[in-house]
Amino acid sequence: MKEIREAFLDHTDSCTVLSSQTVEEDVLVDWKSKPLRARAVVQQCEHAILQDRDDIDWVQINVGMVVYVCFFKGATEAIIPKMVKSLLGAKMFQTDGEKRSVLELPGSVMIVSQDTMTGALRGSRMQYVQSIDARRGEQLYASFVSQCERELASSKKCVEAGAVVKHGPYGNNQTIYLNSNGPFTHVVEF
Amino acid sequence: MKEIREAFLDHTDSCTVLSSQTVEEDVLVDWKSKPLRARAVVQQCEHAILQDRDDIDWVQINVGMVVYVCFFKGATEAIIPKMVKSLLGAKMFQTDGEKRSVLELPGSVMIVSQDTMTGALRGSRMQYVQSIDARRGEQLYASFVSQCERELASSKKCVEAGAVVKHGPYGNNQTIYLNSNGPFTHVVEF
Repeated sequence: MKEIREAFLDHTDSCTVLSSQTVEEDVLVDWKSKPLRARAVVQQCEHAILQDRDDIDWVQINVGMVVYVCFFKGATEAIIPKMVKSLLGAKMFQTDGEKRSVLELPGSVMIVSQDTMTGALRGSRMQYVQSIDARRGEQLYASFVSQCERELASSKKCVEAGAVVKHGPYGNNQTIYLNSNGPFTHVVEF
Repeated sequence: MKEIREAFLDHTDSCTVLSSQTVEEDVLVDWKSKPLRARAVVQQCEHAILQDRDDIDWVQINVGMVVYVCFFKGATEAIIPKMVKSLLGAKMFQTDGEKRSVLELPGSVMIVSQDTMTGALRGSRMQYVQSIDARRGEQLYASFVSQCERELASSKKCVEAGAVVKHGPYGNNQTIYLNSNGPFTHVVEF
């Protein structure tokens, strides 16, 4: 376990930082000068299967969304409720001409730990100096998963439709089989 | 064609801007105070099939990477060579304990137009005010595809291995079938 995370986090002695980005001065109506704490890549899916490479176990969902998630240095438990509310409540999915959140679809959620998303490209090398340490990352990931489960379980529509939250292990190599329509990829940062 | 892009870009009258992010002042060793012009989400794949929803045509690749790409307002042709060089030259892939670029694998490249990645979450709504206009976006996408094709074709290793660049249409709804190991997702911004 964790071999992938460790293999990718072997540059932490470097002082190079994540690339940063700004929007132009004239449109800075919503500037928040706070550091990046978490990043999620979300994709609509028709069917997704996730298998732990160290195991024969696998989990699957049908219609819903796949959430790849990572945490940056300085992330705390405080951001989890906001992340869960934002991601599960975001009207990202185009269905029958209407935009709906995964809770409104109703749909299931597949959560994939993906620390590589903290990487920044420096020349031809990916650097991961902004990744949270593994112990804290694992705690935040577990908390994110359990709060997503709670949120879906509190939605009558989701419960009645049999929508579920499934997830892979933290920080391990996994195989994903994804069938996605759209695929409506979104990058959401916290 | 383009119905998805248009459906997602119906908030352009809003003056709300993309969320922005900074890194902390004390680690600002590589700050580039320039706006975001393009974003790519990259995933390693074992096999990917992409099908245009308006068509029965489909394309596929075996081992390599899937690149979801979008362009922001202000993006110009000038960024394309840098994007191609960075993405195809980035040592993102863990194989046999070594990190390799897709050119070194050697592997194929599947390019997916994904304007939704310009979106920013405002409350429960995704806003796409920073998307490039469709005509310019289509030109940049075509240029990105052709320069990736040229780059792969100039790699003897890739040519000998039969590595290819495949892509879907610009701005249209598509279905992707992905089998990914890792999946080593990266977000790379330009």
